[in-house]
Amino acid sequence: MKGFGGKYVPPRAMIAVTLAIAVLGWAMKQAIVVRTDVGMGTGKLAAQVAHASLSAVEQADSRRRDQWKRGGQKKVVLDGESERQLHELATIADQNGLPNAIIRDAGHTQLEPGTVTALAIGPAAEDAIDRVTGELSLL
Amino acid sequence: MKGFGGKYVPPRAMIAVTLAIAVLGWAMKQAIVVRTDVGMGTGKLAAQVAHASLSAVEQADSRRRDQWKRGGQKKVVLDGESERQLHELATIADQNGLPNAIIRDAGHTQLEPGTVTALAIGPAAEDAIDRVTGELSLL
Repeated sequence: MKGFGGKYVPPRAMIAVTLAIAVLGWAMKQAIVVRTDVGMGTGKLAAQVAHASLSAVEQADSRRRDQWKRGGQKKVVLDGESERQLHELATIADQNGLPNAIIRDAGHTQLEPGTVTALAIGPAAEDAIDRVTGELSLL
Repeated sequence: MKGFGGKYVPPRAMIAVTLAIAVLGWAMKQAIVVRTDVGMGTGKLAAQVAHASLSAVEQADSRRRDQWKRGGQKKVVLDGESERQLHELATIADQNGLPNAIIRDAGHTQLEPGTVTALAIGPAAEDAIDRVTGELSLL
């Protein structure tokens, strides 16, 4: 049997690794889509990503949350292009039962008050997240 | 009595505003110091900031955490220059009883494994945070 880059791996070992991944949460992640069309500076952008991340973690049930943390709380930050796109992705996440949170900026600096800046989806199974955000590029 | 940009404000109103700020948590914040000397891309940097933010929130007691959230979970992202600086700031935060978390990157991409990338301090009272990070520039 072939696996892991073509090296021979006995099937039983493959099953063990798969189980370990499932239990330890290596296959969990959170995706944060942040708008790059509104001209935020790096610090502002990072703060909005953190805001979204934390808010979506609070939406997640404790099982998902713990599993994700045990796996090193994997996060990917993705390039978002419009408010409309973020709302559409959030709707799909809702339809798939994935925890998610959209952030609106209070607008004290740089942006108009109420500007949608970021959307976080997950923590959830990596493949479930990819089905929603798989088309987007890493920032 | 003068206050709020020089307009006349009766003392009783000043006291009420001060109390409201204390109760509602407007004066709470979290500072995240992220290293800009290691050449992370924007998405990577934002992910490290989110990682630090979440980890320090978990270190905070529930009173501070709730107060900060009610106040809109204010975050500032600051420009960090070295691993040594982050460790020194974390030590000062510890000495002042402020929740904090240092992040080391797993090093799957862009960085050497174990590279210190970010430090979050707080949520805590804004002036307590400023006493530790007040010299740093906003990113």
